[in-house]
Amino acid sequence: MSDVIKRFQPLFHPNSVAFIGASNKPGKWGSIILSNLINSGFKGPIYLVNPGETEIKGLKSYSGIAQVPGAPDLAVIVVPPPSVPRVIEECVAKGIRAGVVITAGFAEVGDEGELLQRKLVNRARAGGMILAGPNCNGIICPPASLHVAMPPVFPPAGQVAIVSQSGNVGTSIMRRVLKKGFGISCFVSSGNEADLHCEDYFRYLAEDPQTKVILSYIEGFRDGTRFLEIAKEATKKKPIIMLKAGSTSAGAKAAMSHTAALAGSDSAFDGVRRQSGIIRAKNIDDLTNIGVGFIRQPLPRGRSVGVLTAGGGWGVLAADACAEASLEVLTLPEETIAELDAFMPAWWTRSNPVDLVADLRPDNLWKALDCLLRCGEIHGIILLGVMFALRFRPLPSDNPQEIEKALQEILRGIGDAFQKLLSMADQHQKPVIVASEFPVDALNIESRVSGVAGKTGGACYLKPEDAALVMASLADYAEYLGLGDRENDSSLNPPKKLKPLSGSKQPIE
Amino acid sequence: MSDVIKRFQPLFHPNSVAFIGASNKPGKWGSIILSNLINSGFKGPIYLVNPGETEIKGLKSYSGIAQVPGAPDLAVIVVPPPSVPRVIEECVAKGIRAGVVITAGFAEVGDEGELLQRKLVNRARAGGMILAGPNCNGIICPPASLHVAMPPVFPPAGQVAIVSQSGNVGTSIMRRVLKKGFGISCFVSSGNEADLHCEDYFRYLAEDPQTKVILSYIEGFRDGTRFLEIAKEATKKKPIIMLKAGSTSAGAKAAMSHTAALAGSDSAFDGVRRQSGIIRAKNIDDLTNIGVGFIRQPLPRGRSVGVLTAGGGWGVLAADACAEASLEVLTLPEETIAELDAFMPAWWTRSNPVDLVADLRPDNLWKALDCLLRCGEIHGIILLGVMFALRFRPLPSDNPQEIEKALQEILRGIGDAFQKLLSMADQHQKPVIVASEFPVDALNIESRVSGVAGKTGGACYLKPEDAALVMASLADYAEYLGLGDRENDSSLNPPKKLKPLSGSKQPIE
Repeated sequence: MSDVIKRFQPLFHPNSVAFIGASNKPGKWGSIILSNLINSGFKGPIYLVNPGETEIKGLKSYSGIAQVPGAPDLAVIVVPPPSVPRVIEECVAKGIRAGVVITAGFAEVGDEGELLQRKLVNRARAGGMILAGPNCNGIICPPASLHVAMPPVFPPAGQVAIVSQSGNVGTSIMRRVLKKGFGISCFVSSGNEADLHCEDYFRYLAEDPQTKVILSYIEGFRDGTRFLEIAKEATKKKPIIMLKAGSTSAGAKAAMSHTAALAGSDSAFDGVRRQSGIIRAKNIDDLTNIGVGFIRQPLPRGRSVGVLTAGGGWGVLAADACAEASLEVLTLPEETIAELDAFMPAWWTRSNPVDLVADLRPDNLWKALDCLLRCGEIHGIILLGVMFALRFRPLPSDNPQEIEKALQEILRGIGDAFQKLLSMADQHQKPVIVASEFPVDALNIESRVSGVAGKTGGACYLKPEDAALVMASLADYAEYLGLGDRENDSSLNPPKKLKPLSGSKQPIE
Repeated sequence: MSDVIKRFQPLFHPNSVAFIGASNKPGKWGSIILSNLINSGFKGPIYLVNPGETEIKGLKSYSGIAQVPGAPDLAVIVVPPPSVPRVIEECVAKGIRAGVVITAGFAEVGDEGELLQRKLVNRARAGGMILAGPNCNGIICPPASLHVAMPPVFPPAGQVAIVSQSGNVGTSIMRRVLKKGFGISCFVSSGNEADLHCEDYFRYLAEDPQTKVILSYIEGFRDGTRFLEIAKEATKKKPIIMLKAGSTSAGAKAAMSHTAALAGSDSAFDGVRRQSGIIRAKNIDDLTNIGVGFIRQPLPRGRSVGVLTAGGGWGVLAADACAEASLEVLTLPEETIAELDAFMPAWWTRSNPVDLVADLRPDNLWKALDCLLRCGEIHGIILLGVMFALRFRPLPSDNPQEIEKALQEILRGIGDAFQKLLSMADQHQKPVIVASEFPVDALNIESRVSGVAGKTGGACYLKPEDAALVMASLADYAEYLGLGDRENDSSLNPPKKLKPLSGSKQPIE
């Protein structure tokens, strides 16, 4: 076990938890978070501390930390601000090595809070105790069945880690990951980051075997130099996607009063994140879309894409979005057009995007996908409209049971289609990014499709621009890692020259 | 009835429909679209024409158009391309005044198709018949129970009109409108626009009493000058929101082979749309979000906003998004801060965004909203987190019936909250734009909330940036209409000076 994993073990994989400030009063955070911890199915002992109670939610309550048997790994601290430094001291004396300080009212409220915050950090550091928070909404580690956080959301274990300076934005990100059908390896609301900074979590998560991608919401860095140094190493192991707030003066002002974060100059941030290979997202939707795109897809070795579409308009929107993201919508080589000509309907447009022109034969989608994957000049595919992989059959219109049966069949078909296209992506080592809608009159179908797709490790995006953005982010990361065109890999792709981007980013005038 | 309404009556509100190219073969568009027409509950007679059949789906089939009794208002045409001009001639001879040509294979496939297309337009125009299409996926007019289109989606009647040069993008827009809980007044897939252009539909919809807002997807204009002239008049009556594709050379190329559209220069388009008061959206999500925002909200008389938020991070993101959309996050006047101080928790930040700092008392949300609405310098409110309007109660964790009961109660509470905030918006004549998530562990809650909110005419957005974009679009339209600050309306707002935007659009350096 590496040093960093060992250091974070008591925080994310504790054997036992002391809950300081446990409460019997419904509506109090000391009650809500405790309920979440109990409901999460945590396997180790939970020791409650509240001098005013003897029993809380059926568990024994101790009068003080000293009275708790043994030395728990983790302390969850939900007591009022002035008591926190004393509690930290008692935890250190007890041998507790990690703490989550939920309590707010520190650096974010001004000079006095800042002083109090310094006090608690000094005591923790002197005692070798690591701290998440204060002013945070907690941590969740599904692989450890650990949930000491405010949101009543119990994510399944997965490969997406979330580090957020805002608990509420972190929760928004987590919900979106779940809606896309993926699970969580670790959720951290890092709050004021008095002790542990976002870069500390990055260092840990880069080593954490459960984590494959790191999503982060940041309002400001506590130490830019240290951040750059650590992030640079972390991104060599795993992609970090970041939403940085406070890019305008209005936002920066709001960030300061929220988590005492100095948002800093946006161009300076952009320099740091470029140097450290961090991918920047514009909002929580993009952040999540990009993040889950890294879970299962091979990285593209260049920026030339084939777009295969079931609808003409989506193809046009994808072409625009590709050009805007500096992806080249490749002019197809003659031999690829000839191959497609062999089976496509006579009126297909012989160009990229390859429009399936409302031809309802599923075989054509697979044949066309195979053609494009085999084209040596193409580095990745954007597939718009996965429903064409299924045989079209209108839903029965009246009987709810029959409708549900038909929907189940569609969902099975979509699951199979994702399995198949992901294995084709593996075989050619080229990503196949899917955006699709579902022309059946069942408005909740999207979330069910996401669930089915997510189980395969694939993501189903909902508009063409999303697929283009994800493809571009994968290409950005591959470039950062120095993964160029596979000229030596002649078994799959013959050697070829990369075409220049031909100014496709410019709007036409 | 105005001339334009009279002209479009046979297209969107026909008394009877002739279906030319009706088919018994499942999977054929002549069968699928006919089923949709029958399933839509159209009240008038449907006359089928197919010389090879005597009965289709239980309806009599006529051998030719001449054999159909009387003169139907509308002809739906699904015959192969070479037959279309003859069919148009027969329709004209029969006195049919409107047609929807589904058939593809005209201008979009090259010179020969272009010639065929000119032929059919000339015959229709000579005979006084208006035509939608060709190369389109049909029209839907829910107030007339008319559905002659490919998508098996049966929208409820509502106030949102959709005009799309792509049937597939039009359907994507329609699905999003429905998911937000709103209905449709008219859906037109305008296809190649051989006869009727998008601007013709705009002219009609500007007069159509069912329509309150027009959403449009465009790949290119057939006649820019005519478009500008007509759109200018239409936007005086109703907002038009437009997604324009083909802004890059890759997209323009794709548009040409899709609907034979000349995408033209993007900056020229932007000039036209600015002059004509059209609001431009960047993608289908933004298009829909902006569109439904116009249904029920008063227009803001300026760009100063109050942001009221249940979560700090969302407040920061909203502040950034406001600044980027040239909205001013107003520095609150002393008297408003004093009013808020009277009831807010001691540790609130005394700034805008007004953060409710995890205080779970619903009264505070309403009191704070009222304070901000009464502030004379504020022109509109962005409200982040409507769940704080409800009393927080964790969901029962096991019994599905109990969970459903609790969810029903939450949904009722949200419906009541939207009613209340919309009536407060009316009273002060200031928009209150809501974005919210729902901290209950039921992932399909969002679509149910959208349904409840949509019924009140209010939209519930899902991220802070969406709310800021909608507010900015409302402000843009108000500015285009010349609705300035209400200096004469002393009953609600004392006269005041508009603050300059204080460079808030600039990122800080």
